[in-house]
Amino acid sequence: MNKNTDGFDHPARVQTLREKMEAHKIDLTVLYGKANVRYFTGWRQNTTSFSILFITQEDLIYFVPELDKNAVDKECWIPSSQTYVIPEDPAKGFKELISDEKTIQNIGIESETILNSRLKNVKKNFDCEISDVQPLINIMRIRKTKEEQENIREGASALSEVMTEILDLAEEGMKEKELTAEAKKLMDVAGGETYSFEPFAMSGENSWLPHRTPTEKRIRKGEFILIDMGLIWDGYATDITRTFILGEPNDDQEDFFEAAYEAQKEAKKMVKPGVKAKTVHEKAEEIFEEYGLLEYFPHLTGHGVGLETHEDPILDEGNDVELKSGMVVTVEPGIYKKGIGGARVEDMLLVTEDGHEELTTTERKLI
Amino acid sequence: MNKNTDGFDHPARVQTLREKMEAHKIDLTVLYGKANVRYFTGWRQNTTSFSILFITQEDLIYFVPELDKNAVDKECWIPSSQTYVIPEDPAKGFKELISDEKTIQNIGIESETILNSRLKNVKKNFDCEISDVQPLINIMRIRKTKEEQENIREGASALSEVMTEILDLAEEGMKEKELTAEAKKLMDVAGGETYSFEPFAMSGENSWLPHRTPTEKRIRKGEFILIDMGLIWDGYATDITRTFILGEPNDDQEDFFEAAYEAQKEAKKMVKPGVKAKTVHEKAEEIFEEYGLLEYFPHLTGHGVGLETHEDPILDEGNDVELKSGMVVTVEPGIYKKGIGGARVEDMLLVTEDGHEELTTTERKLI
Repeated sequence: MNKNTDGFDHPARVQTLREKMEAHKIDLTVLYGKANVRYFTGWRQNTTSFSILFITQEDLIYFVPELDKNAVDKECWIPSSQTYVIPEDPAKGFKELISDEKTIQNIGIESETILNSRLKNVKKNFDCEISDVQPLINIMRIRKTKEEQENIREGASALSEVMTEILDLAEEGMKEKELTAEAKKLMDVAGGETYSFEPFAMSGENSWLPHRTPTEKRIRKGEFILIDMGLIWDGYATDITRTFILGEPNDDQEDFFEAAYEAQKEAKKMVKPGVKAKTVHEKAEEIFEEYGLLEYFPHLTGHGVGLETHEDPILDEGNDVELKSGMVVTVEPGIYKKGIGGARVEDMLLVTEDGHEELTTTERKLI
Repeated sequence: MNKNTDGFDHPARVQTLREKMEAHKIDLTVLYGKANVRYFTGWRQNTTSFSILFITQEDLIYFVPELDKNAVDKECWIPSSQTYVIPEDPAKGFKELISDEKTIQNIGIESETILNSRLKNVKKNFDCEISDVQPLINIMRIRKTKEEQENIREGASALSEVMTEILDLAEEGMKEKELTAEAKKLMDVAGGETYSFEPFAMSGENSWLPHRTPTEKRIRKGEFILIDMGLIWDGYATDITRTFILGEPNDDQEDFFEAAYEAQKEAKKMVKPGVKAKTVHEKAEEIFEEYGLLEYFPHLTGHGVGLETHEDPILDEGNDVELKSGMVVTVEPGIYKKGIGGARVEDMLLVTEDGHEELTTTERKLI
């Protein structure tokens, strides 16, 4: 079998979902979300495209754009007899394909992320209960299997090498955009499918006014330079940030970086099974509080990473979810202050049975 | 004023929308769509971010991520006194900021594209009618102003130069991915903000099984190579495709390319004011019919281009919209057949008072 050679067992994933659907009395799951659809089909779509997956206990129907039909037939594990060009009215098209629509009393959808128009299409064709199926899928996706872990480990390793090269080649006078373009090319060459997000380098004032998009500004000696990037490795996202200075930092910059790095180190120590997601964030806050810099910490401490760059678990205040082995999270507390700049160090960690494994390894030094 | 120096008159756009809202008795417009929000704010967001714009006759409130607040305050034309960090419950947060919520009886939302969860948030806080405001905004966005035209013209010109360079540097033995990486770098260097979509080169069998993602396959002599790409120029998308062969084409390939090129040329002739969008598509179909190749034409003939890569007007069957001056569209009929490959030539055209102007100009030759 040369279909879906990425090493993931997609039929088993469908089977697990079917068991969860049965337990929650969901008769039909309709998936539009790209990450969810890829999780079950294994098929990589073009960024501007979309497809729809219908799953019942009996049926598995994949609707794809006409332009993708040949490629899906050849490459996707789902038999071509169950793959169709997206009809004008998708829910109606599905209804016409199945043997007995009356068995469908409860439909699971992606309640948070489904577009209003798509939900209306489902409701128009099925007069029945609607449930949120995303939590059931999140439970599956949040703990990575050995195969997923190995893939993410490879991707994070490739990304770490790219970041190391970028730190080496950054030079005074380069534009933020140029440095970012180098990062993109290195990620392409490393074998990334694409980027987890548009990568960015921010320097000087831009680092405390975080644009999160690179500009024409040239990087100079003695200012913070912050680079955040990630590549997609066989569908799975990676994410890393480093902050550094060309030349000599001043005392304020040294203190500032030390606080961010210390907060990250201490927060990372909390990443182990049984610790609540919010506890990791509280630890970062505690360190910034000690440094008197808490007011400059405007975002969460970290997030899960997988088929989406930002997914569960979110390491932020109020999140009582317990970390478990197989979860992959970032830890990235950051502070931003006018006149000094921004400092953030971000790594990806895999939660293991007795602690964590660092997946990104690029050196974390200021100079 | 050094805010929003991109040359577009954002306050005037808000004023026009307010007039349309008044005419349609919409008291409040809530915008989440990135292209819409950028159209009115002029502010470029990070790809993974989002913000929310609330517009009434009296108020203009912009909710942005905490991490973006400083940059928005400094750069966006909307006064910082009207810019807030996104609250946990956005619609409630907006209600608390305005003087008189009772004046709001009808809310305009992006009915097709708003996420279900966001619509629920609006409905939870406002017990009133909900309308679709997107058609009103589309009317504004579909015909480009002189400033927008000039910007898109510049972007398309930069893109044409990139494509010309790519055709020059394509060599036997390069991987599709490598050729794509070169295209990305050239687009970055040309000054693009980012890409309209993940660009792709497809060759040989991959060109009739269109992945629309580049692979590790090496390009060879005597096979179709198809490259589709676009860059974002000050917020506005551009889009171009060329098909070519290294070495000698065989007779089938020559005929195939000729059909695609002829269909494009004839369809382009239809692009002028007063012609219906569907008529352009019908012309392409007519030419493919003459060549006996209509069955291999699986997609639309073109689409509008602007703040989104695919926007109104769509040049496809059944679309009765009339072309008008100021509209910008692609014309890109394509055919894909096993054993021969895929052929598509795509250009961007600006509809003028008496015809059209070609915005993309890279030579359209097979060899």
